[in-house]
Amino acid sequence: MPAYSTNMRLKFPVLALVLELITIILFAVFVVYDDGKSHGHHGNHDNHTEEEANPMELIINADFSTATVLISFGAVLGKTSPVQLLIMTLLEITIFGLNEHLVANVLEANDVGASMIIHAFGAYFGLAVARVLYRPGLRNGHDNDGSVYHSDLFAMIGTVFLWMFWPSFNSAIAEPGFVQLTAVINTYLSLAACVLSAYAVSSLVEHKGKLDMVHIQNATLAGGVAVGTCADMNIGPFGAMIIGFTAGIISTLGFKFLTPVLASKLGIQDTCGVHNLHGLPGVLGGLAGIVAVSLGKKEGGSAAMQAAALASSLGFALVGGAVTGLIMRLPIWGQPPDQNCYDDSIYWEVPADEEEHEESLAHADHSKNKTEA
Amino acid sequence: MPAYSTNMRLKFPVLALVLELITIILFAVFVVYDDGKSHGHHGNHDNHTEEEANPMELIINADFSTATVLISFGAVLGKTSPVQLLIMTLLEITIFGLNEHLVANVLEANDVGASMIIHAFGAYFGLAVARVLYRPGLRNGHDNDGSVYHSDLFAMIGTVFLWMFWPSFNSAIAEPGFVQLTAVINTYLSLAACVLSAYAVSSLVEHKGKLDMVHIQNATLAGGVAVGTCADMNIGPFGAMIIGFTAGIISTLGFKFLTPVLASKLGIQDTCGVHNLHGLPGVLGGLAGIVAVSLGKKEGGSAAMQAAALASSLGFALVGGAVTGLIMRLPIWGQPPDQNCYDDSIYWEVPADEEEHEESLAHADHSKNKTEA
Amino acid sequence: MPAYSTNMRLKFPVLALVLELITIILFAVFVVYDDGKSHGHHGNHDNHTEEEANPMELIINADFSTATVLISFGAVLGKTSPVQLLIMTLLEITIFGLNEHLVANVLEANDVGASMIIHAFGAYFGLAVARVLYRPGLRNGHDNDGSVYHSDLFAMIGTVFLWMFWPSFNSAIAEPGFVQLTAVINTYLSLAACVLSAYAVSSLVEHKGKLDMVHIQNATLAGGVAVGTCADMNIGPFGAMIIGFTAGIISTLGFKFLTPVLASKLGIQDTCGVHNLHGLPGVLGGLAGIVAVSLGKKEGGSAAMQAAALASSLGFALVGGAVTGLIMRLPIWGQPPDQNCYDDSIYWEVPADEEEHEESLAHADHSKNKTEA
Repeated sequence: MPAYSTNMRLKFPVLALVLELITIILFAVFVVYDDGKSHGHHGNHDNHTEEEANPMELIINADFSTATVLISFGAVLGKTSPVQLLIMTLLEITIFGLNEHLVANVLEANDVGASMIIHAFGAYFGLAVARVLYRPGLRNGHDNDGSVYHSDLFAMIGTVFLWMFWPSFNSAIAEPGFVQLTAVINTYLSLAACVLSAYAVSSLVEHKGKLDMVHIQNATLAGGVAVGTCADMNIGPFGAMIIGFTAGIISTLGFKFLTPVLASKLGIQDTCGVHNLHGLPGVLGGLAGIVAVSLGKKEGGSAAMQAAALASSLGFALVGGAVTGLIMRLPIWGQPPDQNCYDDSIYWEVPADEEEHEESLAHADHSKNKTEA
Repeated sequence: MPAYSTNMRLKFPVLALVLELITIILFAVFVVYDDGKSHGHHGNHDNHTEEEANPMELIINADFSTATVLISFGAVLGKTSPVQLLIMTLLEITIFGLNEHLVANVLEANDVGASMIIHAFGAYFGLAVARVLYRPGLRNGHDNDGSVYHSDLFAMIGTVFLWMFWPSFNSAIAEPGFVQLTAVINTYLSLAACVLSAYAVSSLVEHKGKLDMVHIQNATLAGGVAVGTCADMNIGPFGAMIIGFTAGIISTLGFKFLTPVLASKLGIQDTCGVHNLHGLPGVLGGLAGIVAVSLGKKEGGSAAMQAAALASSLGFALVGGAVTGLIMRLPIWGQPPDQNCYDDSIYWEVPADEEEHEESLAHADHSKNKTEA
Repeated sequence: MPAYSTNMRLKFPVLALVLELITIILFAVFVVYDDGKSHGHHGNHDNHTEEEANPMELIINADFSTATVLISFGAVLGKTSPVQLLIMTLLEITIFGLNEHLVANVLEANDVGASMIIHAFGAYFGLAVARVLYRPGLRNGHDNDGSVYHSDLFAMIGTVFLWMFWPSFNSAIAEPGFVQLTAVINTYLSLAACVLSAYAVSSLVEHKGKLDMVHIQNATLAGGVAVGTCADMNIGPFGAMIIGFTAGIISTLGFKFLTPVLASKLGIQDTCGVHNLHGLPGVLGGLAGIVAVSLGKKEGGSAAMQAAALASSLGFALVGGAVTGLIMRLPIWGQPPDQNCYDDSIYWEVPADEEEHEESLAHADHSKNKTEA
């Protein structure tokens, strides 16, 4: 059955190497490092030099665009092949670039921590792809789709590092000085407020008031997402805390009540729950930005442009994701069959587990003994 | 039995949300960001502006205070409910603030890396709480209280990051320039010396000269704790290394010989051994500070004030911890019964382990088949 | 059998403590912190003060030297005792220091990211030790020498942090400003190119086109090693990407085809495959440096000196490693017997696994009951 030919031996390496070589050639032709000394030959273009981008800012923007794809991956992991993910990366980066240009340069909207252009965009792009790739066979969940105790602990390392670095993330491209410091502190306060409301709501909605690791791993970060657009605005500690408080609540409620409905009613199987960590808090961040700009919390901001930026991000994400999903559905990219979903061993060499390992070693010993005999 | 009603469904969320809302309201009323431009209205208070705290230093101090509570948690984890821990946090932060004010502003003692006001304070506060919460049922240990191979590896990640960032921790509020650099290098040398003596002593006291992961995870950091008070003093590389060397020895010996005695004779069940990583090395750091100041290693320091700061930190910790423990003993906070101690599943939704998981899936399949039939 | 007396109770602590005390005494006699104010007594040596090293650069160089030993450890782990590793550390640091002095101060070669003096040196030193310590009993592998699913995931944390910090590593001692920024960006581009080629080649050479965790954990970092020597040169984004692209390929091919041959034909059992991550890419980096300097990519560089630096690093590594290996073979250092290789429990107290744990607890309960009866 060609649709389920999951052997990637030629598809994946060829696609990856061709993409890589094209990238290297493009860099060879178009990119040079600029040490700021070689502008003599620009002649009458001297005036442009001051508009040239800071190289670290270019690298940060490149990192940001990959973060977007990483978020979208969260909606489709376990049901897609590495080849599909490569295709998705290529298309999503392109569409992200279009939307980012529109939001930042045409609309000139504020989105310093990228609630709209990374988080909301990445989440809804991924959800649109997931919708197009919908599989009825996974409607009732999948045996492999679950966590184990150790992987839950392991994931907490990610949560802790994301939490610690989120203030840096939201302030990375803010104007240095007081504005950047404001972005750091607003993010910190929003995250702190969010942790407490996420814990509270997790306990409120779970069986016997227990806490759920999925909520703690995710919803404790929602404040960082939601304060993104407003991070460098003069919203004050009160504003930042209210945003984080709200984000922790809606993110936890999303995991508990919305994700199951998306899967069963809308055919959207959101593997990692990116809708709850990036989608809903990203939209909240966009809305908070509109309100904050309306209240004059950012010099020169325009509420209409903020609203247009949010609409643009959602529109590009949904349409772009749907088109990308259609391309990913072509039966040539090695998508896994239903029974192999959420199973690493279909695309990865995984070590045999303990018992199998011992068995195979016993077998190997036996063979060795025979050879030696 | 109401004392063991561990269902947190209302208690925990209500307490957490009420505390959070009070905090937000307090911030709304009292806190504004100060961009340094709005002092015109201060009128004749202009002279005060230079005394205003640097906002990053305020945030660092806030982080430091939470570190204190984190240390105390180490003495009571596994035997307390999340509600009890919230109560403890609230009370401990308050008492910490009193002691810090006394040490830093009244006594004007040196404690740049907080050996006394964070480490010794946090450890003895936690131990006092643990003493008040003593349970005879845990006197001979508990079946659940042990480590497994993977959790030991996992914990090493924490050790590595603490080690790497300890020089930053001890120098964070030091005077920028040479003094701050001194704090970085003293801490680095103390940590390095401590690692070697901890390994040596671990091998010396263990069965067949083996190394014990608990010692390596903890005692290798004791040098960072112990050099805290003196980190920015002119103690020289020799002084820093002697402090670290000693800390590695006493911390390892503490784990091996003192912790069991505290548990069996004094009724202090120190879950994570905070006495050995924070208590003993914190006191060592305080004593080293007295000696260093006596020897004139810090301009303007007073040995008497250093001694008073150490006494104050221990006194506030022991009395404050005992009072806090009494409040935590009230039978309304959902403390776990003995048989559920050291078991995550009483307050957390944990994934079923592999076999149970497969069993429940088999069951689910069965049910589904019946439904479909 | 004295050769296999693995009890370290006296050997290890005594050796470690003696080494530590010697180090502390040396620091006490020879090292003072220099606050830049006390040069009055230098008299006519005033001219030397400007040559004094920056203290942070001294610390960075000390860290670099330990990284070298860490790399060499990768070739011998699982087959050596902690006492042997202490001996190896002492000798390797010394030989590293000789080679570094020769390369940096005599030959004045460029090696900002240390492809030659750390990576190639560390790898070939370790391989030479491994060759001298060759054990026929491990020729066909060892039952204990394998990974399990969770340890593979765990190792990925290391890969991620190494990847993130490699640009800082390669640029740490580069000239601040444009040159340092170039080192950061060259390293970033080389790493990115390397990831893609490592994935592609892993899929190309594995069964059914699957990806192998060992390749992903290691070969994705080879670009950081290989671009080390050229990182601060004017090689342009194209040059950096070509280096990374090549490194990803040779590193993956090394794991797949070279490591088994080294083990079976040359008697070099390279536990962690350091030859593929540090050896081959380190040599590639040295060669790339010769080419880049020949092409005039570094002002004042000399291709002959670059070649001499590479030859020196390899020569010191192989001869120094062989001599070190001979010393480590002395039957007094507690080397583990073949059957205990790759087993933590010979030098570490490890927690009993789940079943054994329950069994021993049942036993303990039984004993307790008897005592109480």
